[in-house]
Formats: sequence, structure tokens, C-alpha cells
Amino acid sequence: MADINAIAKQFTDFYYSTFDANRAGLQSLYRDHSMLSWEGTPIQGANAISEKLTTLPFEKVQHKVTTLDAQPSSPTVASLIVSVTGLLVVDDSTNPLQFSQVFQLIPDGGSYYVFNDIFRLNYGA
Amino acid sequence: MADINAIAKQFTDFYYSTFDANRAGLQSLYRDHSMLSWEGTPIQGANAISEKLTTLPFEKVQHKVTTLDAQPSSPTVASLIVSVTGLLVVDDSTNPLQFSQVFQLIPDGGSYYVFNDIFRLNYGA
Repeated sequence: MADINAIAKQFTDFYYSTFDANRAGLQSLYRDHSMLSWEGTPIQGANAISEKLTTLPFEKVQHKVTTLDAQPSSPTVASLIVSVTGLLVVDDSTNPLQFSQVFQLIPDGGSYYVFNDIFRLNYGA
Repeated sequence: MADINAIAKQFTDFYYSTFDANRAGLQSLYRDHSMLSWEGTPIQGANAISEKLTTLPFEKVQHKVTTLDAQPSSPTVASLIVSVTGLLVVDDSTNPLQFSQVFQLIPDGGSYYVFNDIFRLNYGA
């Protein structure tokens, strides 16, 4: 089995650098049955997910991954769950926001697509 | 299909109340192939996971769930991914700690067991 931590690192490097530079480029990571929960709002399908991500109300964003964990998500398929916590800075804010994001990646023709995606900002106590 | 948000709520209510009152009672939620990543440390199997949870270095702990999201994790099986963010207070600390935790629940004879469990504390910026 490939090293799932390396796969998770490669995926999140690509995902967040694309998110920060060209959000429209994320659409190819999703399929019609992919799901995104964005701050509690459920969105299904690559088109709708891309529409959501590209119309978020900020111009600039920068993600910084703090922790990254991965586990196989199936005994029979090489899918994996990737859990990320980190910080993001939007526009010219000086206050980084904490976020948590979870993906399930499904193997597909030598690569992976995102079946599950759950994003939340974490506010302090 | 059962309402997965209701299943997620019922599971997390049980999980955290049991964690806070009687950590040994969590063992029955795991199986031999279950995985826990605890602050980056991988642990496999119900016995080892229970050993880890029951020997964490605090006497009292109280979890408070802030956000709870759930998605089906498979097109064919009624499994689900549950993503939690929240606060926890250990012993007599006055500083709640932020945490993120992800579960994958697998249906098993009318109930669910935990196949994946990833726990992280979230430290501020």
C-alpha cells in the first residue's frame, strides 16, 4: 500500500495551494456525487461545490496547515480519510482564523477524488 | 435512509458523556481493526484504544460540542463520517481547550462501531 501520509500531504499541498491561487481549479477534484459541508451548509456535486468555492466573499486567502492526519477509510478499497487543522488569513486581515477540514479521498484511475469534504471555522472559547 | 444528522448527534452525545463519566465504557464502540490517531499517535484495535483512553493523564474531563457535521461515507453502505469541533476542560483548569475529532461509523447489527477516530487539540494562532 502506498504511504497514506505521503498521499495526504501531497493532496493537501495541492488542494490548499490551488485554493489560495485559483479556486476554480479545485472543481476537477470532485465528482457528481461528492459532498461538501461548508460551515454547516450541505452542497452536492462538482459544479455546485465549485460555484460555492469560487463565490466565497473574499478576494485573497492563504491557508497554513497545522496538523495533518490520515487513516485508511475502508478495509477493501485504498480510500482514506484526511483530517486537517490549520489557520487561514483572508484579504488583509491580521487575525488568522482557525479551521478544521476533513476529506475522504477515493482512488480513481491512479489518482484520487474527493467524496467527502467538511469545512468548519473554529472560534475561540 | 435514517437521518444521519440524528445518528451523529446520538453517537456524539453517547461518546462524550461516556468519555467524561466512564472512559472504560468506550471500548465496546471499537473493533480489532478500528484505528485511533490521538494527537498524531496511531493506535489500532479496541484493546489498545481503550488502554490509551483510560490512561490519559487527567482525572476529570468535560467535552462541549460546538459544531457537528455528518455525511454518508459510502455510496453502498450506511456508514458515515462525523466531524466534531468543540471545547474540553480538564481537571480544574479554567482554560477550555479547542479540539477537532473525526469518526467514521460503520453499521453493525442495528448499531454502529467506530472504524476511524482522529483526535487533535487546536492551539491558537
